[in-house]
Amino acid sequence: MTTVSIIGNGNMGTAIGDIVAAGGNTVEFIGRDADAAITGDIVVLAVGYPAVADIIAAHGEKLAGKVVVDITNPLNFETFDSLVVPADGSAASVIAGKLPDSTVLKAFNTNFAATLASKSVGGAAPTTVLIAGDDGDAKALLASVLGAAGVDAVDAGSMARARELEAIGFLQLTLAVQEKVGWAAGFALTK
Amino acid sequence: MTTVSIIGNGNMGTAIGDIVAAGGNTVEFIGRDADAAITGDIVVLAVGYPAVADIIAAHGEKLAGKVVVDITNPLNFETFDSLVVPADGSAASVIAGKLPDSTVLKAFNTNFAATLASKSVGGAAPTTVLIAGDDGDAKALLASVLGAAGVDAVDAGSMARARELEAIGFLQLTLAVQEKVGWAAGFALTK
Repeated sequence: MTTVSIIGNGNMGTAIGDIVAAGGNTVEFIGRDADAAITGDIVVLAVGYPAVADIIAAHGEKLAGKVVVDITNPLNFETFDSLVVPADGSAASVIAGKLPDSTVLKAFNTNFAATLASKSVGGAAPTTVLIAGDDGDAKALLASVLGAAGVDAVDAGSMARARELEAIGFLQLTLAVQEKVGWAAGFALTK
Repeated sequence: MTTVSIIGNGNMGTAIGDIVAAGGNTVEFIGRDADAAITGDIVVLAVGYPAVADIIAAHGEKLAGKVVVDITNPLNFETFDSLVVPADGSAASVIAGKLPDSTVLKAFNTNFAATLASKSVGGAAPTTVLIAGDDGDAKALLASVLGAAGVDAVDAGSMARARELEAIGFLQLTLAVQEKVGWAAGFALTK
């Protein structure tokens, strides 16, 4: 049994929480109350990138020793033409730098919430959660939580690959806002 | 009727040439003979990134006024851990800088050759060619050549989005060499 704490109760946090519960694992939703206890082995930061700094300020010390999952797409949402993180880095690596006592993973940022709920991308292929990070055990733990609910996960490589995952999330968002793909569709990984 | 000249006769050049011909357009294959005439309205550089510099040295002046399509994935193939172009740029933008009198597009780099031949990604979704570039007419011309053969194309945005297309191509190649996806599968764009 794994406990997953989710900070943020928007459509992504809700969809991820539903998957955790469907797999028979324990989910707890954490608000922004800095006094809230965080019991999860895995903590999902299910908020937008601009909110992450406040989350870390409120909860950072309690994240030590835990697997922390960054799901963000750090777009400049005014221009939809660039990311707000270093071109040779990623939001995930920035967050990892701020949480040196946590094991940070990148995941879920290439999945629209509706594809997590339906387990299908555009009705064409099963939803796959791409996971990047430098700790194989942490990636395997998250993959096991997903697998328990019948959701595929693929190890996308080291933390350096978060850059590519964020590029996919960025492009997918630009295509969706232009209505070139639907919010229940987008990039599917086929095998 | 559009004429497409293809430089390079590997599996990608062959697959692209087959699509051009299937759509009733004209295809010509160009070798590395610097004296060869190039008659195409569209010229596809269907070679690996390391070979592009020699192609431009041999044929560059003849590419003026033409739509030039870069299909490369500029990986460091020794490490499979990075690209060899600037992190905030792309191979396509580097090539565009060397061909100021041509209209450069990025396309095909997210498509494995087998998915161009079969028009299917992993048996799950139709193959989609993602095209990035700053000239809408050029993108529409390439899309029309593909559409004539029943191959979907999606305008992925400006030349700046070549960075994201190359990130997708990079990640897809790393997954394929690790046998996490097949060479007839990979990322499918669903709508």
